[in-house]
Amino acid sequence: MENSVLKNVKGTKDFMPQEQMLRNRIRRTLEEVFEAYGCKPLETPMLANYDLLASKYGGGAEILKEVYRLSDQGERELALRYDLTVPLAKVVGMNPEMRLPFKRYEIGKVFRDGPVKPGRFREFVQCDVDIVGSASMLAEAELISMAFDAFDRLGLEVYIEVNNRKLLSGILQELGIPEDRAGDVMLSLDKLEKIGVAGVQEDLRERKVDESLITAIVSFLQEGEMTLASLEERFSSALVQQGIQELNQLFAYVQGAGAAGDIRFAPFLARGLGIYTGTVYEIFLQDQRITSSIGSGGRYDKIIGQFLGDGREYPAVGISFGLDVILTALTMESVEHDERAADVLVVPLGTEALSLGLANRLRGCGIRTELELSGRRLKKALDYANKERIPFVLIFGENEVESGVVVLRDMREGNEEAVPLTSIEQRLSEAITNR
Amino acid sequence: MENSVLKNVKGTKDFMPQEQMLRNRIRRTLEEVFEAYGCKPLETPMLANYDLLASKYGGGAEILKEVYRLSDQGERELALRYDLTVPLAKVVGMNPEMRLPFKRYEIGKVFRDGPVKPGRFREFVQCDVDIVGSASMLAEAELISMAFDAFDRLGLEVYIEVNNRKLLSGILQELGIPEDRAGDVMLSLDKLEKIGVAGVQEDLRERKVDESLITAIVSFLQEGEMTLASLEERFSSALVQQGIQELNQLFAYVQGAGAAGDIRFAPFLARGLGIYTGTVYEIFLQDQRITSSIGSGGRYDKIIGQFLGDGREYPAVGISFGLDVILTALTMESVEHDERAADVLVVPLGTEALSLGLANRLRGCGIRTELELSGRRLKKALDYANKERIPFVLIFGENEVESGVVVLRDMREGNEEAVPLTSIEQRLSEAITNR
Repeated sequence: MENSVLKNVKGTKDFMPQEQMLRNRIRRTLEEVFEAYGCKPLETPMLANYDLLASKYGGGAEILKEVYRLSDQGERELALRYDLTVPLAKVVGMNPEMRLPFKRYEIGKVFRDGPVKPGRFREFVQCDVDIVGSASMLAEAELISMAFDAFDRLGLEVYIEVNNRKLLSGILQELGIPEDRAGDVMLSLDKLEKIGVAGVQEDLRERKVDESLITAIVSFLQEGEMTLASLEERFSSALVQQGIQELNQLFAYVQGAGAAGDIRFAPFLARGLGIYTGTVYEIFLQDQRITSSIGSGGRYDKIIGQFLGDGREYPAVGISFGLDVILTALTMESVEHDERAADVLVVPLGTEALSLGLANRLRGCGIRTELELSGRRLKKALDYANKERIPFVLIFGENEVESGVVVLRDMREGNEEAVPLTSIEQRLSEAITNR
Repeated sequence: MENSVLKNVKGTKDFMPQEQMLRNRIRRTLEEVFEAYGCKPLETPMLANYDLLASKYGGGAEILKEVYRLSDQGERELALRYDLTVPLAKVVGMNPEMRLPFKRYEIGKVFRDGPVKPGRFREFVQCDVDIVGSASMLAEAELISMAFDAFDRLGLEVYIEVNNRKLLSGILQELGIPEDRAGDVMLSLDKLEKIGVAGVQEDLRERKVDESLITAIVSFLQEGEMTLASLEERFSSALVQQGIQELNQLFAYVQGAGAAGDIRFAPFLARGLGIYTGTVYEIFLQDQRITSSIGSGGRYDKIIGQFLGDGREYPAVGISFGLDVILTALTMESVEHDERAADVLVVPLGTEALSLGLANRLRGCGIRTELELSGRRLKKALDYANKERIPFVLIFGENEVESGVVVLRDMREGNEEAVPLTSIEQRLSEAITNR
C-alpha cells in the first residue's frame, strides 16, 4: 500500500490504548454521575436527513456550512449530525406521548467540517445532559450540582460562572441600547474579562456602535463591582428584576444542594446569541491550565417549541461536557495516569493449556490477566511487561507444575516468590491491592 | 415543522431509554470481559479516506457498493467506515513501532448502505476483539473462552461451532474439486445444516458444478458422522492434517482454559470466502430463539500483510459480537428486564432547596436519585414513579422538615413509613438491597 493512503482524514485521529483507557475512565465517570441523578440514556443516529438539520433552528446558517452532506443509494439527502440537541428535539417531536420532564443524557460523536486547531477536531465526542419540560430553577441547580460532582470525581477543581440572559438583556435595554445593536454589544461585553474596559470600548467602535451608546456602556462598566444586590438597586425593569430573581433562586438552590463548589456571578457572560433564554453557565478549571471552558450550557426555553412548531412549549435546560478537553486537562496533570490494560501477565513455559486455566481462574476473581501468546522467552516477556507497565508476572514452567506452585514476580521490586497454586488468586489480589 | 422532516433516516433508529439502558449493560459487560482478558481499547475515526477503504482488501468490490461516500470542504474524498478491521489494519500500518501481539477491542458504529431488514440497520454497533501478531492457537482459545465468559455474564446460553479452513480446503482438494470451483462448493456445503444433503446436491447443480464432482461430494456426505478422528483417517494430505492438528490443539487449549462451554466441530462451516485462512467459528444461542449467529470470527493471517504490503507478516485472529442482536436476544426473554433509571424519586412539597440537599446525600451513597422538578402534586408524582418503575418515593413536606423525618413510600407494597432524616440513607439502601 502506498503511504499516501495510510493516513487519517484531516481533523480526525486514532485514540491509541493509553489515551483511550483514560477516555473510557472519563466516559464511565460521567455516565455514573449522570445516572446518579436519575438521567436516562438515549442513543440517536449519527446519520440525519439533511432537511431536519436545515430546518429553522437556533444554530442557523453558520453551522450548516460545517455540515457533512451525503446521499444514499436511494438518492436521499443525508447529513452527519453536528450536535446532540437537534436529535433530542426530533425525539421529543416524534414521541408526543413522552413523559415530561425528560432527563436524558447522550454521549456520542458529532461531526463538523470546520477549522482544525489543536484540540479541535472534525469528529468529536459530546457528552450532553438536558432536561426538557421543567421551567423550574431546580433543573439548573441539578445540572450545576451534577457538574461539580462530576469534576470532583474526575479530580479536577473547577469554578462555574453563571449569568441570566434576561438580566443582561434588561440591563442593555435600560442603558438605552436599541434592540438591533444589543447582540453586538453583548458579544463585546462577553470579552470584558479578557480585554478589559478599554478593549471593550475599542471593540464596540469596531462594531460601529454609536459613540453615545459606547459612552453609556463604558461609564456603566466603571461604576465599580457589580453584585446582584447592586444591580437590583441600579436597574428597575421587570426583565432585570426577573433575571435577578431567577439567579437568586438558583443560588439558593445550589446552596441547598450542598454543592460546595465555587460558583460565580458573571454579569456579562452571554454564551452566543442564538439559543439561550435565561440561565447561562460556563465551567472553568481553577488553575487555568486550560483557559477555555471545559463545559457549558444554559436554559433554552424556546428552541424545541420553535423547532417542532407544534404550538406546545418545551422549557429546557442543558449542559455539555467535552470529553477530549477533559482528557487534555487530565493529561496535563503532573501526576502520571497509571492506565494499564492488565494487572498480571501469565508466562507459560511449556504449560500453555494449564496456563489458560490459570489465567481464567484469575479473571474470575476480577484480576485483569494477559496471557503471553507469542511464545516469547522469559526475558522478552518480562521486558514486555515492563514496557506495558504490567505490575506482576506469573511464571509457570513445567517444574512449577510439578511442585504445585507458580512464581510471582513483582515487576517494581524485582523480587520473586513461589506461591502455591491453590492460593495464587488470594496472594495476587493482596499484592495488587497493596501496590 | 412538517412531519415529513421529523423522521429518521431509512435504516436507522433512536434507542429510547428503556432499550438503551439494556444496551449500556451489554456494552459494559463486554468491556469488562474484554478488559479481564487484558485487551486494550482503541478508538478509530468513523470518517475514512475513500482510498483507504477502496484499496485491495478482503472485503472487495461487494462491500464498496455499500459504502457511504462524502467529501469535505477541501474536496477530499471521504467515506464512512464499514467495519472495524480496516481501521485496525491502518493503525497497525501507521504504528510500525507497535508491540505485538496487539490485543485490542473497539466498540463503535459502522455504516453500510445496504438492504434493510428487521434487525439489520445501516448504522450499527460492532464489538470487535482482535489479536494481531500471534500465530498460536492460544489466541483462538483465548477469544473462544472470552466469548463463553461474556455470554455467561449476559445470562445467555450459547454453543460455538468451530472449523478450520485448511481442513475444509484440503478435503475438497482430495475429493478432486478443482481450485476454481472450491469456493462455490464451500458456499454450498456451508448450508448443509439448513438444507440437508439433497438441498446441497440441488444447490451444486444450480452452481453448475460438474455432475461427477457432485456425485463425489454427495457420496462423501453420506459416509456417516464426521469426527476429527474419522477425517484424519479418511484424508491424508498435508493441508488436511495441518487443519486437524490445529483443531486438536485448539480443543485441547479450550479444555485447558476450563471454559465449560459447548463447543462443536462443524466440518463445513466456511464463513465466506474472502478473509479467513485457518480457524473459523460462529456463536449460536442454545435455545435457537434467534437462529442466525450472534457472534463470529476466525483467523485471517494474510489480510493485514496484504493490505499494508510492507512485506511483513501479521498473523491475526478476531471475534465480533453484534450489540443489537444480543439486545434482541435479551428482550426476547420471558423475564422482564427491570432496567430503571432511578432507585428513588424525591418529591419536595414546598421544600425544594432542602430536597436538593437530601437528593445529593443519597447520590453520595450510590443511590440513583431523581428529584421531582416540575412541581407536580403528590398524586401525579406517585403516578409518574409507578410508570417509570421507580421502586421508592421520598415525600418531603414542611411538616416532615419540622419533625426531622421524611416519608418513605414503597411503591410495590404501597406502604409508607416516617424515617428520621439522619438515617434515611441507611434505611433506603437496605430497602433497595432487600427489594
